[in-house]
Amino acid sequence: MDHVAASAATPAHRIEFWFDFGSNYSYLSVMRIEAEAAARGVSVDWRPFLLGPIFRALGFDNSPFVLQKEKGAYVWKDMERQCRKYGIALTRPSVFPRAALLALRVALLGAEREWIAAYCREIMQQNFVHDRDIGSIEVVSEALAKLGLPAQQIVAEAQSDANKLRLREQTEAAASKGIFGAPTFFVGDEMFWGNDRLEDALDFCYSSPR
Amino acid sequence: MDHVAASAATPAHRIEFWFDFGSNYSYLSVMRIEAEAAARGVSVDWRPFLLGPIFRALGFDNSPFVLQKEKGAYVWKDMERQCRKYGIALTRPSVFPRAALLALRVALLGAEREWIAAYCREIMQQNFVHDRDIGSIEVVSEALAKLGLPAQQIVAEAQSDANKLRLREQTEAAASKGIFGAPTFFVGDEMFWGNDRLEDALDFCYSSPR
Repeated sequence: MDHVAASAATPAHRIEFWFDFGSNYSYLSVMRIEAEAAARGVSVDWRPFLLGPIFRALGFDNSPFVLQKEKGAYVWKDMERQCRKYGIALTRPSVFPRAALLALRVALLGAEREWIAAYCREIMQQNFVHDRDIGSIEVVSEALAKLGLPAQQIVAEAQSDANKLRLREQTEAAASKGIFGAPTFFVGDEMFWGNDRLEDALDFCYSSPR
Repeated sequence: MDHVAASAATPAHRIEFWFDFGSNYSYLSVMRIEAEAAARGVSVDWRPFLLGPIFRALGFDNSPFVLQKEKGAYVWKDMERQCRKYGIALTRPSVFPRAALLALRVALLGAEREWIAAYCREIMQQNFVHDRDIGSIEVVSEALAKLGLPAQQIVAEAQSDANKLRLREQTEAAASKGIFGAPTFFVGDEMFWGNDRLEDALDFCYSSPR
């Protein structure tokens, strides 16, 4: 992509990445986005949100991959192949979709800190490789500690009323933007749904004047 | 792909292509599959079926793109971008999804004849470019005539009781194979769902001994 100069990302070269740690296709994007975006000189705005309330507002009381047996069976086959293609490890979680409230609150808190990408990859791997309960304080704290971060302090801050409210507000913002699944990417007002559209969304950063 | 010799496709190098003319993502695959398969030395087995009964058996009384407003709005945006990417024309049909019973019966009849790919592209373009009623005898006959085929004779044969029954049986076969949407590809027992997986499915023809 010869239009990608070595310069730092300008405001025009940004992508919003909306994800939930329970979402299997979000896992693929969490593992891929930092490198793919960097290769194109695009900055990532990490936007953790709660997919559960979005599904419930649409009339689904669980993931479509659970509610639709046929699609659910297919999805794990597809995940195996996709992970092989990308060179990403996968163990089908024994609980799906996993609630990840605390992990998401921490991600929201860290969204603009330099550790966000590594933290998100670590949490995703705990869910989709090590099959651990990413909703627990134990797993979230371990993930933070592994990155050399003050886990106790961050977890306490993540559980403050202000931060809890922010996650609810971010989830409402997702709904009002028309988000119906995860991962979802925005480049300006342009929405892209699904890990399969990550490259298209990144390329779109350069496709139109903004 | 250096493993693709110039030889004719062997039985191992075949892909089943399950589609409905009303399905917008099937449109993309109908327009692309012949060239993509030929480039890899893969033969296409065309498998027209009725998506409506599949959706109804899964508990949906219409396309998910109609039932889910948010997803529906997104899908047409996505279609515009995908068509631009592939260089395929698109006019959003005024009726969606369009019933295409007769057109599918003709496709079933022609599935192993040399005109199947060109016929399917023609019908799809009548739906997704020219916004015409592909369920009508008029449009189906025109499509056949355009290919220099005896339209009246083919339409009569397509509407025989035997051929009508075959389409119902093919739709039941789709359900029993676990198909829940279109397009769907099979390489042996391996299922791939969606136009986004066409290349993966074709490449899979060479990925394992069969």
